[in-house]
Amino acid sequence: MENLQQLRQRVDDYLTTALANSSDQADLLTAMDYSVAAGGKRLRPTLTLAVAQLLGVELTASVLKAACAVELLHTYSLIHDDLPAMDNDDLRRGKPTSHKQFGEAMAILAGDALQATAFEWVTDNELPVVIQAQLARELALASGARGMVAGQVRDILGTGHQLELAQLKHLHAQKTGALLRYAVLAGGIIAQATPAVLAELVKFGESYGLAFQIYDDILDATATSAELGKATHKDADRAKNTYVNLLGLADAQAALHQTLAVARDSQAQLAQLTGTDTGTLTEFLAYFKED
Amino acid sequence: MENLQQLRQRVDDYLTTALANSSDQADLLTAMDYSVAAGGKRLRPTLTLAVAQLLGVELTASVLKAACAVELLHTYSLIHDDLPAMDNDDLRRGKPTSHKQFGEAMAILAGDALQATAFEWVTDNELPVVIQAQLARELALASGARGMVAGQVRDILGTGHQLELAQLKHLHAQKTGALLRYAVLAGGIIAQATPAVLAELVKFGESYGLAFQIYDDILDATATSAELGKATHKDADRAKNTYVNLLGLADAQAALHQTLAVARDSQAQLAQLTGTDTGTLTEFLAYFKED
Repeated sequence: MENLQQLRQRVDDYLTTALANSSDQADLLTAMDYSVAAGGKRLRPTLTLAVAQLLGVELTASVLKAACAVELLHTYSLIHDDLPAMDNDDLRRGKPTSHKQFGEAMAILAGDALQATAFEWVTDNELPVVIQAQLARELALASGARGMVAGQVRDILGTGHQLELAQLKHLHAQKTGALLRYAVLAGGIIAQATPAVLAELVKFGESYGLAFQIYDDILDATATSAELGKATHKDADRAKNTYVNLLGLADAQAALHQTLAVARDSQAQLAQLTGTDTGTLTEFLAYFKED
Repeated sequence: MENLQQLRQRVDDYLTTALANSSDQADLLTAMDYSVAAGGKRLRPTLTLAVAQLLGVELTASVLKAACAVELLHTYSLIHDDLPAMDNDDLRRGKPTSHKQFGEAMAILAGDALQATAFEWVTDNELPVVIQAQLARELALASGARGMVAGQVRDILGTGHQLELAQLKHLHAQKTGALLRYAVLAGGIIAQATPAVLAELVKFGESYGLAFQIYDDILDATATSAELGKATHKDADRAKNTYVNLLGLADAQAALHQTLAVARDSQAQLAQLTGTDTGTLTEFLAYFKED
């Protein structure tokens, strides 16, 4: 079994070269590649690979391509979120944002193209068509009007209004949760796992996604810009709805703790159902530093 | 066989109601629906239905859903093209553009969500998975960095520079041609047509797409704003690369004539290969008024 670091390296290596033939329009390709190459934790495709691997899938070129699609989707969402009409951010992962580097029109189009390319990658590979169709369907459900984009709309409209905890959870389940849930589920789809395993993967993915957002809010409230490579404390400044703003830091940390317990329970169920080593999932959960 | 008008009515009826459950976020749904309901000729989904029908496909709810996906894709591209950073248009199909009506952030997000929903519609239906996967793949190839978005980038970058005819053709083959080509091909995919029929559909779709763009340029140069329901003569004003600006009106009309002859030849081949009535394709070609 490859560990998290090895899987992430595979993702990075794949993303470094795989976009190269995605367009015959050089400026567009440059803008797409700029944001994809900017890096980040590669959490989503690495999660997909980790789950596929623990379910016995050989990590072929087709599996890598299908798994990395979610990173293109995630990257497009960051490009569009950074636009002046949205969060108006100048800095992302320590580099100028796409519209700062290439102008607004190109940033919009690079994002649009990355979304389409994500659907290309899940369907233009050597995997069985039943897997391709299911990945495309779940990716569409997770990323569009039922998932990520709906969450982004809620985030924008909710800014300046205090939300209830249930509303905040729903917002994040859509905005960031849906794509993380997809990333975990995709590993099971690629492995053609049983319904019981898929259901448990969904539970793991959902608690992982919730933990991720709570942790992100905690980091934003406590870390410095230099540590994160982006502007911080913007959430408090702009009266954004975050777990920390809503619950206070201590209760947000307690919520993180509780959510991680649910994820660990799911992990135990998966280990039992599949009889395999789920050590890479432990590594993913270790990302969250509870204090 | 249903004629073009009947098929278009099916598309309109489907699009009127089918988006209703696409999101639990009401503002997003309103913005998506606003642009989809604005109408237009519904050429792309109607082409898909016409081709599927002539190849013997029953027009079930799943076929309608899969066929109408391309209209969502097309609508998203119009919303984004109209943005201030792009063409900066205030009027589309006689109504305020999305960003004029809902603001820029919502227009960007409504477009993003419509793109994802298009991929949902081709994969979340009762068609065989082999059809779903192939539709998603071809739609992604047609609409992203290899097709529509690349053409849009070429269009923006080419404005103000005179292009060669070959460059202009390539631009349009990507910007508008790829999605029209897809619309025709999709009918064949849904019918699980033979490779020979699919190849002829691609030829028909490509010449149809080229004719469409030449005709659009001719209309823009000759029609009034009231006739088209949008601003006209903008192409000449902004030194856009169009067939009329490059060739002059008479030669653009000759090019249209020649391109339609190729499309009619493809239609004849299709009639021979399939032994069916291709009368609806004649109706599609009658859209182009040659003078």
